[in-house]
Amino acid sequence: MAGNTFGTLYRITTFGESHGKGIGIVIDGCPSGLELDEAYIFSELQRRKPGQSKIVTQRHENEEFEVLSGVFEGKTTGAPLAIFIRNQDQRSKDYSHIMDKYRPSHADYTYSKKYGIRDYRGGGRSSARETAARVIGGAVAMQILLKMGIDINAYVNQVGNIKLDSNIKIDYTKIDDNIIRCPHSETASQMIDLITKIKKQGDTIGGAIHCNISGMPVGVGAPVFDKLHAELGKAMLSINAVKGFEFGSGFDAVTMKGSAHNDAFENKDGKITTKTNFSGGIQGGISNGMDITFNVAFKPVATIIPAQDSIDKDGNDTIVTGKGRHDPCVVPRAVPIVESMAAIVILDHILIDRSTRLVDLVSGL
Amino acid sequence: MAGNTFGTLYRITTFGESHGKGIGIVIDGCPSGLELDEAYIFSELQRRKPGQSKIVTQRHENEEFEVLSGVFEGKTTGAPLAIFIRNQDQRSKDYSHIMDKYRPSHADYTYSKKYGIRDYRGGGRSSARETAARVIGGAVAMQILLKMGIDINAYVNQVGNIKLDSNIKIDYTKIDDNIIRCPHSETASQMIDLITKIKKQGDTIGGAIHCNISGMPVGVGAPVFDKLHAELGKAMLSINAVKGFEFGSGFDAVTMKGSAHNDAFENKDGKITTKTNFSGGIQGGISNGMDITFNVAFKPVATIIPAQDSIDKDGNDTIVTGKGRHDPCVVPRAVPIVESMAAIVILDHILIDRSTRLVDLVSGL
Amino acid sequence: MAGNTFGTLYRITTFGESHGKGIGIVIDGCPSGLELDEAYIFSELQRRKPGQSKIVTQRHENEEFEVLSGVFEGKTTGAPLAIFIRNQDQRSKDYSHIMDKYRPSHADYTYSKKYGIRDYRGGGRSSARETAARVIGGAVAMQILLKMGIDINAYVNQVGNIKLDSNIKIDYTKIDDNIIRCPHSETASQMIDLITKIKKQGDTIGGAIHCNISGMPVGVGAPVFDKLHAELGKAMLSINAVKGFEFGSGFDAVTMKGSAHNDAFENKDGKITTKTNFSGGIQGGISNGMDITFNVAFKPVATIIPAQDSIDKDGNDTIVTGKGRHDPCVVPRAVPIVESMAAIVILDHILIDRSTRLVDLVSGL
Amino acid sequence: MAGNTFGTLYRITTFGESHGKGIGIVIDGCPSGLELDEAYIFSELQRRKPGQSKIVTQRHENEEFEVLSGVFEGKTTGAPLAIFIRNQDQRSKDYSHIMDKYRPSHADYTYSKKYGIRDYRGGGRSSARETAARVIGGAVAMQILLKMGIDINAYVNQVGNIKLDSNIKIDYTKIDDNIIRCPHSETASQMIDLITKIKKQGDTIGGAIHCNISGMPVGVGAPVFDKLHAELGKAMLSINAVKGFEFGSGFDAVTMKGSAHNDAFENKDGKITTKTNFSGGIQGGISNGMDITFNVAFKPVATIIPAQDSIDKDGNDTIVTGKGRHDPCVVPRAVPIVESMAAIVILDHILIDRSTRLVDLVSGL
Repeated sequence: MAGNTFGTLYRITTFGESHGKGIGIVIDGCPSGLELDEAYIFSELQRRKPGQSKIVTQRHENEEFEVLSGVFEGKTTGAPLAIFIRNQDQRSKDYSHIMDKYRPSHADYTYSKKYGIRDYRGGGRSSARETAARVIGGAVAMQILLKMGIDINAYVNQVGNIKLDSNIKIDYTKIDDNIIRCPHSETASQMIDLITKIKKQGDTIGGAIHCNISGMPVGVGAPVFDKLHAELGKAMLSINAVKGFEFGSGFDAVTMKGSAHNDAFENKDGKITTKTNFSGGIQGGISNGMDITFNVAFKPVATIIPAQDSIDKDGNDTIVTGKGRHDPCVVPRAVPIVESMAAIVILDHILIDRSTRLVDLVSGL
Repeated sequence: MAGNTFGTLYRITTFGESHGKGIGIVIDGCPSGLELDEAYIFSELQRRKPGQSKIVTQRHENEEFEVLSGVFEGKTTGAPLAIFIRNQDQRSKDYSHIMDKYRPSHADYTYSKKYGIRDYRGGGRSSARETAARVIGGAVAMQILLKMGIDINAYVNQVGNIKLDSNIKIDYTKIDDNIIRCPHSETASQMIDLITKIKKQGDTIGGAIHCNISGMPVGVGAPVFDKLHAELGKAMLSINAVKGFEFGSGFDAVTMKGSAHNDAFENKDGKITTKTNFSGGIQGGISNGMDITFNVAFKPVATIIPAQDSIDKDGNDTIVTGKGRHDPCVVPRAVPIVESMAAIVILDHILIDRSTRLVDLVSGL
Repeated sequence: MAGNTFGTLYRITTFGESHGKGIGIVIDGCPSGLELDEAYIFSELQRRKPGQSKIVTQRHENEEFEVLSGVFEGKTTGAPLAIFIRNQDQRSKDYSHIMDKYRPSHADYTYSKKYGIRDYRGGGRSSARETAARVIGGAVAMQILLKMGIDINAYVNQVGNIKLDSNIKIDYTKIDDNIIRCPHSETASQMIDLITKIKKQGDTIGGAIHCNISGMPVGVGAPVFDKLHAELGKAMLSINAVKGFEFGSGFDAVTMKGSAHNDAFENKDGKITTKTNFSGGIQGGISNGMDITFNVAFKPVATIIPAQDSIDKDGNDTIVTGKGRHDPCVVPRAVPIVESMAAIVILDHILIDRSTRLVDLVSGL
Repeated sequence: MAGNTFGTLYRITTFGESHGKGIGIVIDGCPSGLELDEAYIFSELQRRKPGQSKIVTQRHENEEFEVLSGVFEGKTTGAPLAIFIRNQDQRSKDYSHIMDKYRPSHADYTYSKKYGIRDYRGGGRSSARETAARVIGGAVAMQILLKMGIDINAYVNQVGNIKLDSNIKIDYTKIDDNIIRCPHSETASQMIDLITKIKKQGDTIGGAIHCNISGMPVGVGAPVFDKLHAELGKAMLSINAVKGFEFGSGFDAVTMKGSAHNDAFENKDGKITTKTNFSGGIQGGISNGMDITFNVAFKPVATIIPAQDSIDKDGNDTIVTGKGRHDPCVVPRAVPIVESMAAIVILDHILIDRSTRLVDLVSGL
């Protein structure tokens, strides 16, 4: 158990390295009878893909995948669904410049010390290349959730100091209208300009993503340790470069009074809703039927062009210089990853919830 | 599996309700041979205890516990360590005023809908009373960590808009010098004043806690889904009233450039450290030997005195009025809970880490 | 994780020692809304109880239990159901005679070496006293299964060389008609005579239990590692003194031909059944709707009166002499334990099975 | 979670179908730094391979595997080790004869009912082809165990009524000297003759395998539910066609007296051993340092040539006739599968055991 598995009933295990044979996923517990939409998976992978625009890394990666198991005559059989993306080019490019050095704020040092060995080619297992597998796992879960009327939409709401005005009404259909994936075109332009400027400096910049889950049934989640927002938080914090997670009112709640923060219930023509949604759709760890909302903070990418002080594997002072192509900001490509991890958590908890009440188990009770 | 278990090798399961027989914990996987310091557990429970000061709830709770199993002649045996706190007074106080109503921003509505039944007395299982069991689990883990030279210190760094100046050097020995548990006396006074004012209004206020883990070995944690900060995040988000979690630079990373955010390595007389610690002691999900640092955001307590609009179980409009004693702000009592959950995560990952490298498994390799 | 938890969605954790404060269980994932029948639990405990007849140990144990959590107004709430049996007499009886000795074929030596410490009083955690907690967990599961039309009946089918003739038609209502729990009175008498004779010799004898599960729906279980019979096997083998498990044809299958062993399907008025049931109700790890059948082999109890060669904790030769009261044969008291572990496995898999097919998850598909 | 994962710290997940793209395994938690011996893995796969002799199925299967991840410069990195065997020939052979029929004592009926869909080609996921992945997982574990001085040897000890005399001293080096994998040449010849005769009849026959684990350290395993023999039992029972498991004295214990069954301890020049080994190397679920011994019973293969009564998917009477090539007896090919599953269990528990005692965790205690 080295941390490469996630979920209980809808359980994913990912494997593979940045510059090894490829990246893969095994999904155990995918409900049977799903007509697998491979085109949908592929289109989600395109949203995560390097080289998709001028503000992301120009590195080339293959996104063509092969379904290795779990599908028969186009439908999932209930057997493990294994999907593999073969890396196109695993030629040992010249990594000698970082082979014995620890790049600042990468996982080089910690992996070396923990395992005593490190695949230094492009970060190996610690590379964000691994998230391609998550997008596959999420795209499968999303197909099921959409049939249930549940939709998940994430978008970029901050890059550096450029922040989307929270008063702007969001139109989710516009998220992919621009290369930064911010649904407000003016803000998007500012974000793109900022990233373009940062990129010219050989530097990188942080950003934030907001996520909204609509169509949630009431009662999904669990009390105590597996609270729905705790599971979502773990899922988001497990994404490379994430530094923070907040849901509903989040860190703003720190300065709020209870009288302002409490979400009053109301009965709207037979549907129970709350007048406000500072709870972010979750109360006591369980969904209340309102939209689930959360924010995810991403640090600036650690790979930069300017020279940096560091040490080598023998503890000697050295200089690390970035020469590879890298993302000046991760958020445009991280949007589908956030959505995918959210989909995996939500589907898993929906499956678990089906065994909660005796009345649902015993017919004629 | 209804979410009441946490951890892999050091695994806790809690049970009990606010106004039932009591609250308990089973710790499975506690290393054998620990001379259990019950006084230490008791002192940690005192720090979480209601009624400990004028700024917390004046409700009375019993904190006397009984070790039900797992200890022989004062030492842990490796068998499950079960500890139970019997509720002192479970007389059915009059809860008829909330029995059929859903209190805003509590778990009343979601529990009712999920389970079809709800122990409404004092919140039942959703009550923060459950966290007493976590403090026990943490106090046991802490005893082991301290022997390893690992120390965990949490303190209040914000209440409403009163925020501890981040430039102030913290002296952990002063955390418990005041009733708010902020180690800077002037800021603490302001916080206490604010809470006192809020309390008079029958209202509540949010707050934040900072946590610092020192003495960490390098290499603790896991890649991909079980990253050390993802596990810490889940642990913190599972605490009642928590709305957000950030580690290292956290949400501030959003506005930072990579050139400023990267933590340059340096060799200080043979010890590898980083010049800054925006990574918060964790890189790629694995500890790098620097202090682990994180912040936790708490919402204002949902129980307030003023009347609030709500609905009853039949969906009819109703008014909810607080009459019980409640905390005007949770953070002073949440400090030991944050430390406890951190201790549980760290110990669990230290235990898991022992099987990572072949060289540690095979003698004479 | 020290092996004291069993199950996935219906998950039990047991704790406690033979001569400590008591024995307990936490059931996490018990469906909500079950009117808990405490009298039923108590009656099952009576079937496992020492002192119930002349052929079992005359030791006295308390079987009165206290429900510590998870029930409100008589019904399960979905919160952890914790139940505790307090040991009546934990006075430190004189165990000095075995304190430093390793009794042959007990767990004394292995516990001492694994943990470096051992609660030697009555076997501590390794005592069969632990199985009282399992009977509670099984009696709760059984209440749910009975509502689903599933019944589980175990009985003694062998003691020493006295074996129940497999051609005899079994009437489950007669199982508890005699103190050995063999539903055929003549065979039962022979078994009782044999045990009585063995007991006079201060010796012990092995035995076997057959279990039958009727009313099974088709499709319960899982392929590959969690095959239903593999889970049942693990459950049975985890019971103290069990040495073997076989289902359906079991070890007899070794000598059979496929043409004789295959269970031909037939359609009996619309119901699919098999003409024979060598499969024991399970094919490919999944229930086929026929009765599930299995046998469990128990070794003779290790505690005997005659002097035995052994060693002490320093490796010196010593003599161990039994003086305590012990069971001459475990099977009469093991019947409810076998049924309980079976109930726990079956309910757990029924809960898991509810999330298997997309068509059951999406309404109107 | 559909049952395709096994183990806690050394955790395997298998995927793939008999006539799909191939069969694969992900090993998460393989210790880092192991120089992976691919030739050893390949040689173990050869022992499981169809077509290896005249008494096994003449079907052709590919056993060439590709390491997809987890190895760098020949050594395991601690990242998931994924290995895939591509099926050589997945042309849709004509399976129309069984497409709509349920073959007796296969998993056709139960899979169809559970999942609502079934990959009928060669049994799909329920095919024993899946065990090739287990052999890979076992061969990796075995490489580590051998370095620890632990050896695992399984051999055929019964085919039909031909049983290896238990008084014969076994020489493990002779196991692979004959095609049945029975280390006693005369008995082996009789077994081969029997299988040859059965094969000519188009029928099949059951068999049994004995397994011996030597070099075990004391203290491996867990009390209560995860007893070492319970884990071994589950592992064995999860292998296709297994009907029973017994360890040490096994079912023979049923007829034994305690005075004969107890294993007296003795100190042999400083090494604690037992004079007999009816315990099978495990007491109280924990290894005692003696050899671990167990037997596994296999049923006759369900695929036979003669016509059998059955039903089709609409419940109509039909006739099933075997035409494919099949094994007349599974045991010769099952020997490496038994060894593999044993290796996986033992390594997993050795890894878990490393965190048991405080004294091993805290230096200088």
